[in-house]
Amino acid sequence: VSPTTVSHVFSGHRPVSPGTRQHVEDVARRLGYRPSAVARSLRSRRTDTILIVVPDITNSFYPELVRGLQDSVAPSGYYAMVGNTDAEEANERALLELAMSRRVDGIVFHGFRTGPADLAAVAEAGIAVVNLGEGAAGAAIDSVRFDDRLAAAEATGFLLAKYGRSIAMIDGDEVAPVGRDRRLGFEGACRDGRVRRPRVEVTEFTRAGGRRGMERLLGRGKRPRAVLCANDMIALGAIDVLKARGLRIPDDVAVVGHDDVDAATIVSPPLTTTRTDARQLGALAGEMLVTRMTGEYRGKARHQVAAHQLVVRDSA
Amino acid sequence: VSPTTVSHVFSGHRPVSPGTRQHVEDVARRLGYRPSAVARSLRSRRTDTILIVVPDITNSFYPELVRGLQDSVAPSGYYAMVGNTDAEEANERALLELAMSRRVDGIVFHGFRTGPADLAAVAEAGIAVVNLGEGAAGAAIDSVRFDDRLAAAEATGFLLAKYGRSIAMIDGDEVAPVGRDRRLGFEGACRDGRVRRPRVEVTEFTRAGGRRGMERLLGRGKRPRAVLCANDMIALGAIDVLKARGLRIPDDVAVVGHDDVDAATIVSPPLTTTRTDARQLGALAGEMLVTRMTGEYRGKARHQVAAHQLVVRDSA
Repeated sequence: VSPTTVSHVFSGHRPVSPGTRQHVEDVARRLGYRPSAVARSLRSRRTDTILIVVPDITNSFYPELVRGLQDSVAPSGYYAMVGNTDAEEANERALLELAMSRRVDGIVFHGFRTGPADLAAVAEAGIAVVNLGEGAAGAAIDSVRFDDRLAAAEATGFLLAKYGRSIAMIDGDEVAPVGRDRRLGFEGACRDGRVRRPRVEVTEFTRAGGRRGMERLLGRGKRPRAVLCANDMIALGAIDVLKARGLRIPDDVAVVGHDDVDAATIVSPPLTTTRTDARQLGALAGEMLVTRMTGEYRGKARHQVAAHQLVVRDSA
Repeated sequence: VSPTTVSHVFSGHRPVSPGTRQHVEDVARRLGYRPSAVARSLRSRRTDTILIVVPDITNSFYPELVRGLQDSVAPSGYYAMVGNTDAEEANERALLELAMSRRVDGIVFHGFRTGPADLAAVAEAGIAVVNLGEGAAGAAIDSVRFDDRLAAAEATGFLLAKYGRSIAMIDGDEVAPVGRDRRLGFEGACRDGRVRRPRVEVTEFTRAGGRRGMERLLGRGKRPRAVLCANDMIALGAIDVLKARGLRIPDDVAVVGHDDVDAATIVSPPLTTTRTDARQLGALAGEMLVTRMTGEYRGKARHQVAAHQLVVRDSA
């Protein structure tokens, strides 16, 4: 048979007689032939693979997000791979390059050091893009995000009303949108509450970062009555330090987190935090990405804001 | 210039005069040309990408393992992608197919429903393979694992010595090697300790599974004095139920986990558990994989067993 016939058998793009198909498949099996997905994807320009890029896979918010995304794209035949960046620019750029070089059909991106402008080049290369953050004007980049600034302002307002103006924040990053927006929300609510120069310690979005931040807050100046932590990992580290020093939570220091990860209900006292549904965010991103990849939607960029909610438990 | 010259400019495989290189690069930039990694990888058969396959990315043991692997392969220029299977056979097979179709250079695999025999086909297709579990006789499949059976036997011996023969186990899976081996270790230690027919509840390796298992243990028969949980997620769920019923840990029921995830020191009381260093396991797997991918090692299969250690905290 001709190479074209063999190709038709394996691609399924053209009908082949049952006898010929059987013969080709038998020979292929005997030779151990396996169609190369790389060669196939070169021709069809489809890989059936998408990439989700996250800053820290050990923060359980992100595995939940990945699960939501996977569950949402799987029925359409796509498989989601995860890339972890450690919030480092070089890693973010390497993964954007990987997406642009057409090894995947789409990308869901949470950048700390790169943003919509960098994603525009990926979208222009014909890759479907969903940014977990702000959208970019002009580019066909869909986005879905939480309103981090509003959420932080609400949590700060709750602390001010309950514990007064002796308030501080431990933030995880000054540059990344999530760190910047949560700080802006905190500072805005402090201004509204007439708090003069509230203390902000910037560390990183990890339990170790939370420990460092709380050590610094307790190391100098007056002990704050309430501390807003920019995520739950930070709050868990802050609680480690308070417990080690014999301080009571919330009687001596109240603590609020952000995300509502699983550990928020494992820690004692259970953590008051802003619930942001990571699985739902992943599902929303997946839905937008699939409609772009299939061509079902070809219009201008869509921007969604997912809901958040303050969950009051015992830590504040 | 000829297509061959353009190819030489971008592949870097042959020298091209500086003037010609500059000209080609200028034109390419003006046209927005980007070398296709898919086409390149078809020719060079290198993707610089490896795949790590895990059963449950929301169990924080696995993100830590991924971090250990990434840190270990990055210096050699490889990037690790993560695939999550939900411990489902179809997903495991889909990811093995993906590896075989040469979209990655190597695979680190933790299978619940497939095993060394299935990996043999991947290795024969020329893909570097490290199995997180037992090795396969005859195939060039490196493996690295913990001695789950021994670890469970040791933890069981600790509970028997401290709390007597009223002991039970909550396991996460009857078929997967990790579930089977931990149960064998538990039952062997029970035989040695002359415990007649110890109770074993099989659920799944999650916090929800642990809740179900503990509900069942408390729902009928005599309440066990000590419970061995097949991983920390199960132990966290078991503790949820004990607390909800007002039972004291360890005074009424002692609980031991397995893995030493971050949450083991967040929960109250802190969890007695077997520490298995997920990052170290990932690093060992990465080192073996890299030496296979680079061709530095071409010998027969290597099998490593990583160390574990019982960490006694307050839950038992």
